[in-house]
Amino acid sequence: MMKIGVDIMGGDFAPEATVIGSILAQKELPYDTKLVLLGDEEIIKHIANRKKFDSSVWEIVNTSDNIGMGEHPSKAFSQKPNATIPVGFKLLKSGAIDGFASAGSTGAMMVGAMMIIKSVEGIIRPCIATMMPTNSDNPSIILDVGINPDVRPDVLLQYGILGSLYAQYVLGIENPRVALLNIGSEEEKGNLLTKAAFTLFKESNEFNFVGNFEGHDLFSDEKADVIVCDGFVGNVVLKEAEAFYHLIKKRNVNDVFFDKFNFENHGGTPILGINSVAVIGHGISNDIAIKNMILNTCHVVKAGLIDKIKEAFK
Amino acid sequence: MMKIGVDIMGGDFAPEATVIGSILAQKELPYDTKLVLLGDEEIIKHIANRKKFDSSVWEIVNTSDNIGMGEHPSKAFSQKPNATIPVGFKLLKSGAIDGFASAGSTGAMMVGAMMIIKSVEGIIRPCIATMMPTNSDNPSIILDVGINPDVRPDVLLQYGILGSLYAQYVLGIENPRVALLNIGSEEEKGNLLTKAAFTLFKESNEFNFVGNFEGHDLFSDEKADVIVCDGFVGNVVLKEAEAFYHLIKKRNVNDVFFDKFNFENHGGTPILGINSVAVIGHGISNDIAIKNMILNTCHVVKAGLIDKIKEAFK
Repeated sequence: MMKIGVDIMGGDFAPEATVIGSILAQKELPYDTKLVLLGDEEIIKHIANRKKFDSSVWEIVNTSDNIGMGEHPSKAFSQKPNATIPVGFKLLKSGAIDGFASAGSTGAMMVGAMMIIKSVEGIIRPCIATMMPTNSDNPSIILDVGINPDVRPDVLLQYGILGSLYAQYVLGIENPRVALLNIGSEEEKGNLLTKAAFTLFKESNEFNFVGNFEGHDLFSDEKADVIVCDGFVGNVVLKEAEAFYHLIKKRNVNDVFFDKFNFENHGGTPILGINSVAVIGHGISNDIAIKNMILNTCHVVKAGLIDKIKEAFK
Repeated sequence: MMKIGVDIMGGDFAPEATVIGSILAQKELPYDTKLVLLGDEEIIKHIANRKKFDSSVWEIVNTSDNIGMGEHPSKAFSQKPNATIPVGFKLLKSGAIDGFASAGSTGAMMVGAMMIIKSVEGIIRPCIATMMPTNSDNPSIILDVGINPDVRPDVLLQYGILGSLYAQYVLGIENPRVALLNIGSEEEKGNLLTKAAFTLFKESNEFNFVGNFEGHDLFSDEKADVIVCDGFVGNVVLKEAEAFYHLIKKRNVNDVFFDKFNFENHGGTPILGINSVAVIGHGISNDIAIKNMILNTCHVVKAGLIDKIKEAFK
């Protein structure tokens, strides 16, 4: 039985969106997957009742404490041991759940990931990845999108390995093409970081390196499946894509394709390189986004990604 | 009499697009502005004749030599002294022309800018700026977009000054709001570079610093008129916007607003921080883009930007 912990108190629209999202996810989950809801039991049951959903299929860990978005992550983490995120990470660490998802405080999620679950041995810096929509059915994955704004070239190399494993085992892409986000297609182009990284990537045989990738190559699956960059650049790229989406909405463009750019609906951002599965949802997640976050978490657990990563870094 | 040099041999669609672009520009220029065309005189006259345009209003500097896109910029610059770009910079240096515009080799333009025209005293690193479309009539300006991928915080501070002067004197924005492109709105967010730059910006009184600016603030004039970043990040941001435009075209979105994202039509990218006015056009410039590049060059000259910059760095 696979168990997935869901933070019911986290996110701008919790607990309404998180409980309803859990109901929606439950309906799509196979019988061997159990959701473990962390939150105020009474509220959870009340919302489920209202939705005519039998909450007895869930395991509920009753706690009403929550780490707010404005709180200092590491302080709050130690001062509120009964808040949903610290409790979630304790369960994850103990093996009581196989994955944990929250649209609550990103900072607290990172504290739990780094302090409780810890990096896979050999990994210098875990990172977060997100899917980039493309003009085809295949999304590409970009990493890091914001955890590590200053990194060394060997950290980028590890992102290449992590991204490649994710693309292969979670997205089902065979021999994924890994590219380095850069400012020119030629080998000698770039800043000090990408130039050094290019050399490492070229010499490595740990993934299928296809060379440099430029900003104008984004939103297309022609060149690469995995796009590697530092967390500063990745964060700017991701947020620029969000800006496009807002512009598209503002201009009333009628094309459902562009809904792919609604990152608020995406299934969350997995923290890659730690010893278990933790997925961070967008703070303003609605019920659909919560559903997608839960399904995505199950998907990553089922893919056995953590074992594949451990193996690669052995 | 203001004189603007135009490279007729530079760009993917030269000399056809460059001559026709010069004709289109001439029709919009005031009587006190003369275009100086650098290129093959016979071809220029032939195209002008065909377009029933009297080429005698132009000064023509006859040279058919050209630095190709694939050539090594600094080598080609010295080995082809009669190519349009080296000749243009000689004229610019001597004062025979007041501004020089080319859609030819960007590398050769930079060589001319740095080796012949040279930086304004006190400027550590000249940069290039581009306009970012917004959801209003006011574009914002972003710099650097690609010259210096690795910079120090004090270089970013200078970009702030350069961008602010450009916004004030060329775009006519009073007390332009200058922001730092970063990965969070709070002061303590960022990478080592932007954190150090934030401190410098805050302590400076040389421009109107309005704080950090995130990727999702792009394409809106709500927060800032001038966006400062290093050349790596700026280049990725600009090219991502190009990718977005291609996507819009591919999806057949019918909204002329998005034509603002067609950077191929923009009026070129001024090199800021050098002792004269040099503007780099997009390689694939069509006649309209060439026209805009020429008009933009005139505009920068007329604004007296170089003197304002020299004054600021005195």
